[in-house]
Formats: sequence, C-alpha cells, structure tokens
Amino acid sequence: MAPAEDPAPDPAVDPRVHRTRQDVLRAALGILTTEGWDAVTHARLAAHAGYSKVTIYKHWPTRTDLLRDALGQLADIPHHAPTGDLRADLIGEMRAFRDGIRDHGLDRAMAVLGEQARHQADVAAVRDQLVSGGDRIVRELLATRLSGTELLAGTRMLSGAMFYSALMYGHVPDDDIIVTTVDILLRGTAAPA
Amino acid sequence: MAPAEDPAPDPAVDPRVHRTRQDVLRAALGILTTEGWDAVTHARLAAHAGYSKVTIYKHWPTRTDLLRDALGQLADIPHHAPTGDLRADLIGEMRAFRDGIRDHGLDRAMAVLGEQARHQADVAAVRDQLVSGGDRIVRELLATRLSGTELLAGTRMLSGAMFYSALMYGHVPDDDIIVTTVDILLRGTAAPA
Repeated sequence: MAPAEDPAPDPAVDPRVHRTRQDVLRAALGILTTEGWDAVTHARLAAHAGYSKVTIYKHWPTRTDLLRDALGQLADIPHHAPTGDLRADLIGEMRAFRDGIRDHGLDRAMAVLGEQARHQADVAAVRDQLVSGGDRIVRELLATRLSGTELLAGTRMLSGAMFYSALMYGHVPDDDIIVTTVDILLRGTAAPA
Repeated sequence: MAPAEDPAPDPAVDPRVHRTRQDVLRAALGILTTEGWDAVTHARLAAHAGYSKVTIYKHWPTRTDLLRDALGQLADIPHHAPTGDLRADLIGEMRAFRDGIRDHGLDRAMAVLGEQARHQADVAAVRDQLVSGGDRIVRELLATRLSGTELLAGTRMLSGAMFYSALMYGHVPDDDIIVTTVDILLRGTAAPA
C-alpha cells in the first residue's frame, strides 16, 4: 500500500533518510489497514521493513508519531482536478475516492482512524485534518449550489455512500452506482424549476 | 452499553444462565466499542464482568463465538415502526439509527466489524447479516419508489451520511441534518413532474 506519488523530497534531507522514512511509513500503513492499530509497533516495523528498531525509534520516538505520519500519507492519494462541469467533476471526485479505497485500503484506514479518534485527542486532530482535506474538493464543488446544512448533508451523502458501501457491504462502488448517487444528489439539490 | 430491551429469554435456559450471558455480552460490546477488537478476550471479560474464565469459556469456547454473540446484540437496537408516511418514516428510521450511534456506540461497533470482516470470512458473515438487517427498514421504505441501482444508491446515501458524519466528523447527526438529508434524497428520487 502506497500513495500514488511521493511528495517532493525536502532538499535538506539526505535522500537515503527520505527513502527510509517512505519505506517505513508505507509498511506501517500496510500493517494498519490489514492488521489494525495495535499491530503497528516499532518492533513489528523493524522486522517487516528491514530497518533496525534504533533507526525507527530515531525517526519516530513514539507510536503516536509513527501512526500520525503513516496516516498522513493518505493525504497524498490523488483527487480529481475539477474542470468546471459540476456533474462530471463530482463523478470524477467520487471515482478518485473509490480508487483510493480499491488501491490503497482508504476505507479501512479511515475506519481505524475514526474508531481510535474517539478516545485519543491527538488522533482526533489527525482525523479532522485528513477528513476535511479529503472532502475539500467535493465540498467546494457542492458549495457552488449549496450552503449551510444542505452543504453538510450533501457532502456526507456522497462521501458517506462510497465509504459505507465499501466498509459495511464490502462493495467497492462501481461507476454505475457512482453516477446514480451523483445524479440523485444533483436532482435533489437543483433549484425548483 | 446495552441493547434497549433484552430479547425474551429462552424458557429452556435457567434465568441465572441467561443473566450471566447478557452481562458478559454487554461487557464485551462495551469493551469492543471503547478499546477495540483485540481487547475482547476471555481473561479481560472475566476481570471486567466478574465471572470466572471457566464460566466464560464454557459459554463461548472461542473468541470468535464471543465476538459473534457480542455483535449480535446490535440487532436488538430498536428501529422505527413505519406508519405509511414515507418522509416521516425515513426521518424516524434515521433518528433511530442516530440514537443507536449516540446511545450504543453503533458506529464504532460497525467500524470495527467492517475492518475485521476484510480478513475473516466468519466475521464478514456476521457483518453481512447485521448490515442487511440494520438497513432492512430503510431499504423497504425506499423500495416503494426505487429499484435496482437507485435503490442501492439511495439506501447507502441515507445510512452512509449518518455513519460517515458520526465516525469521520465526530458529529452525531442532529434532527436538522437528518431532515435535510431525507429531503434531498426524496427530491432527487421523485418521479419527474
């Protein structure tokens, strides 16, 4: 499991150090989405990613540091680039969300994050930042015709339908259901004729 | 955490045995929704619920038995009783879902279940049964005007919006957002005038 593209490396960081960090964080996110929160430990990662525990502790002194940076990779999953056609852009953005679920286990990572956020304030802050960033494009698209409670409801109906279908029904949404979902939302929020 | 009402006890079961089972399963669901899947162990439950490990092993020989029955309690969370007014019934059923989230940690239990279902076929069967039962009323209500992909999309937009709001935004949906969500869906799925 890995984001589609690496963020540009910080030029001040030794490329080997950058590579080590990326390797470990990818492994951490992979373990998180397949085995859950408790499985992500320094010892497990050292065995899995082939670095020493000392190296991993040097980069991430605590498990919280490690989990925060591992989850931070979710922000790198690509979004749709809006074109100005609202329907096509909403469909494109929901497809990008679906691809993140299918290719990167995004729904499982989000579920773990949502669950853990309930009793850990630092994890709740990571969740809030990722969810707000993840929904930014769909929210901005819908804000061209909705505001207030309708904007909140509309955003959650679209993202929620994708997430719920994948996590709770085990069905990664296909294009047909994505188009139908977007069309119901657009008809339901159109100005009356 | 507990279902609102106990199912009628099996007359063949000693009332003390019935009470023991209920006590342990409530404690198990409480631990599951606050501390996660791995925390639900026979030893932990013995300490928490005040019964011996031997007793708990006698009722549930494996952790899977224990988790299956603990999650089975979610099926007892009350639903809305339909009245024949589609809008009022959808709002009532979404309020019942919201109350389950607020009072019983239903969203967290569902998230844990969705996550664990990915790599355990027996857990996936428990998830499928609970989700299908949980969405039965909203699906039957929407089936009075929708079918096929529209019925799938509509069900997931309603339940998904509630679940996503609670789990990923940490906002248990209020009545205002429930009514707005239902109204968008009904407008979006009305026959053209």
